[in-house]
Amino acid sequence: MTNPTTPPADTPVRLPLPKLPIGYRLAGARGGLKRHATREDVCLLVSDHPATAAGVYTTNLVFAAPVAFDRSRTPGEGFRAVAINSGNANACTGSRGLDDARSMAALTAAAVGVPESSVLVMSTGIIGEFLPIEKVRTGIDAAAVRLGTSDEAILTAARGMMTTDTRPKLSGSKFSAGGRSYTLFGMAKGAAMIGPRLATMLGVVVTDAAIRPADAQTLLREAAEKTFNCVAVDGHTSTNDTVLLLANGAAGGEPLAGADLDRFAVALAEACEALAREIADDGEGATHVLRIEVGGCSTRDAARQIARTIADSPLVKTAIHGADPNWGRIVSAAGYSGIRFDPERLVLRLNGTLLFREGQPVSFDADAVSASIRDQRETLIELDVGSGTESIRFFSSDLTAEYVHLNADYHT
Amino acid sequence: MTNPTTPPADTPVRLPLPKLPIGYRLAGARGGLKRHATREDVCLLVSDHPATAAGVYTTNLVFAAPVAFDRSRTPGEGFRAVAINSGNANACTGSRGLDDARSMAALTAAAVGVPESSVLVMSTGIIGEFLPIEKVRTGIDAAAVRLGTSDEAILTAARGMMTTDTRPKLSGSKFSAGGRSYTLFGMAKGAAMIGPRLATMLGVVVTDAAIRPADAQTLLREAAEKTFNCVAVDGHTSTNDTVLLLANGAAGGEPLAGADLDRFAVALAEACEALAREIADDGEGATHVLRIEVGGCSTRDAARQIARTIADSPLVKTAIHGADPNWGRIVSAAGYSGIRFDPERLVLRLNGTLLFREGQPVSFDADAVSASIRDQRETLIELDVGSGTESIRFFSSDLTAEYVHLNADYHT
Repeated sequence: MTNPTTPPADTPVRLPLPKLPIGYRLAGARGGLKRHATREDVCLLVSDHPATAAGVYTTNLVFAAPVAFDRSRTPGEGFRAVAINSGNANACTGSRGLDDARSMAALTAAAVGVPESSVLVMSTGIIGEFLPIEKVRTGIDAAAVRLGTSDEAILTAARGMMTTDTRPKLSGSKFSAGGRSYTLFGMAKGAAMIGPRLATMLGVVVTDAAIRPADAQTLLREAAEKTFNCVAVDGHTSTNDTVLLLANGAAGGEPLAGADLDRFAVALAEACEALAREIADDGEGATHVLRIEVGGCSTRDAARQIARTIADSPLVKTAIHGADPNWGRIVSAAGYSGIRFDPERLVLRLNGTLLFREGQPVSFDADAVSASIRDQRETLIELDVGSGTESIRFFSSDLTAEYVHLNADYHT
Repeated sequence: MTNPTTPPADTPVRLPLPKLPIGYRLAGARGGLKRHATREDVCLLVSDHPATAAGVYTTNLVFAAPVAFDRSRTPGEGFRAVAINSGNANACTGSRGLDDARSMAALTAAAVGVPESSVLVMSTGIIGEFLPIEKVRTGIDAAAVRLGTSDEAILTAARGMMTTDTRPKLSGSKFSAGGRSYTLFGMAKGAAMIGPRLATMLGVVVTDAAIRPADAQTLLREAAEKTFNCVAVDGHTSTNDTVLLLANGAAGGEPLAGADLDRFAVALAEACEALAREIADDGEGATHVLRIEVGGCSTRDAARQIARTIADSPLVKTAIHGADPNWGRIVSAAGYSGIRFDPERLVLRLNGTLLFREGQPVSFDADAVSASIRDQRETLIELDVGSGTESIRFFSSDLTAEYVHLNADYHT
């Protein structure tokens, strides 16, 4: 939710880019919402066929106007466009904020030539300033005439939703059902104020399969629970977290059901997990992505709460940044998670090496484990709690001086 | 719980030092537990009269051996000595850790000439290494022959319990009851791994009043709830948090009761709050202490949970470090605290200036508020939730690159 005067340096996006499903076009453009003059700040996504849409949203009581707007429309059918702006969150803006979200939808409808009721909107950026609606109009109008399916269209669109992200976050997957091949495409933004609870960040996943609204909502919620809801950069739950799923049926076939719907669910979870991992990997200032696998719990929620407590501990995050196999910080974080367990049954491994078992220190090669942290972008923390069979995978980033600089030294 | 090779630079302690109550002597000494060779790492406190003792302890499931040891002995009567070591937490050390805590008590009893059953112990420092008991013995023996009541004795004792603290944390207060004057003296350590829940850090408060064990326990718990349990540096609840209260009755009089006990409770809360504030002020790398006053809540626990969520947000902590009156981060932190409230009724002031009301931005002089943050060590955040009459005061520190360096760049 930051908007530094000087954006962080870009990092490379993974190639090849994922392909768009049939019947979608998109584009990014610059409307002038961001202070730095070289960045796209509007993203437009259009479905040429009316699409089913589902959404999951922040659980923050202080939620932004576009969240209220989209929440009232999803799940549903007949959607044609999603408009996203960065640089301004349209959060804490009262009734004028809601009017501005409606205006943004109306401007999009006019620019693209679809009904106003078929548009969804998202915003990210500064909290507490009114949306500069003329700049939004400039961006939407510019994007509307550039809509396409090329790599360039995909990249400018994904950049239009970025704040301090250093690269676009994209994912794609394919699945077959009823003899047909379907495609999923997702894009997201992350960076900071990332501590989703039941929803998350900005993300859009689109498919050319046909999905009934209730199925779309159920499957998106389940996928988000396991993916976007298992990622944290700084544990601060945003006012604007939104993930949308659009399914336009353009690849043909009846709405998916039964085993076909199950195959879609797997592909959707894969697409969401890839985006979630990217968000942790590109957390503000991050030098490591933490993959935290917590198992042996009585419920998945218990596993997530332990994983989130480890992920949010500044002491764990700085230890990983310093390549320090400081297992006491990890074990003690589990201990204050609020979940009951027997510390004698904890088993902790770091990058595959056993560090703690039966309530006692285990002798291990600290230099080798330290080197394994230092030499890899991803650090694997595996904690078995020994009190059940449920597990979770959680992604986080380390805590660096660069995070502090980004959030203290730039005016937001 | 860190033990850097190079300790942080000392900062001045406030003068004059508080006075010891009647009948207590103390001293610090070096036993060699800390890697740097110039620091005391053992603290010994002796009561010449048998004292009532009460204790509150960490709620972390992964609790240290000295916590288990003291918890089994308090509340109670007849206590004569408290031994504290820094440099090693004796945590995650299994049954051998418990044996070592018992040995530490026995060594203290022998050195001071009191029954083993009259000794309490505390440890802080590295987690997961066995206590070097011969070094502890060296420190205890050296401290035992230096016991006294001078400023030098107080300072060396308080330094003996420090880890990355940059100064001893002391407090004192006086109260009168039944025509007699009584004294309270407290000392504590903080620095990092500070996110107490129902207990806290290491702290000792002693008085020359006579207090019954049950009263001592009740009043210490109440005072800790409002003070030590309302402070956070990094939100990481330690394995070793312990606060002890000793009351030896050396100033004469019957055990306090009724209005006299109430006067003691006020003095105790003052002594505890002064130490709690010091812990936040001297948080690792801190350049600001945050005083967070949350009011208008239905319960005190709700107020504390909102305050703690604000206190723990890296985005709030970095904003204050950067002198940025970024009220959106504060309001959105309240929104994900888990406490229900109506965002339209929130009122937020920063250093006395109104920033947010009725769900809308308020125009204010951002440069002036920024300057007020930059120019003062303490930043006052006042949030009224508008849904009740309960309130809390919470202390925290800002998040700086120095915190990251201390916890990433030093081996612990």
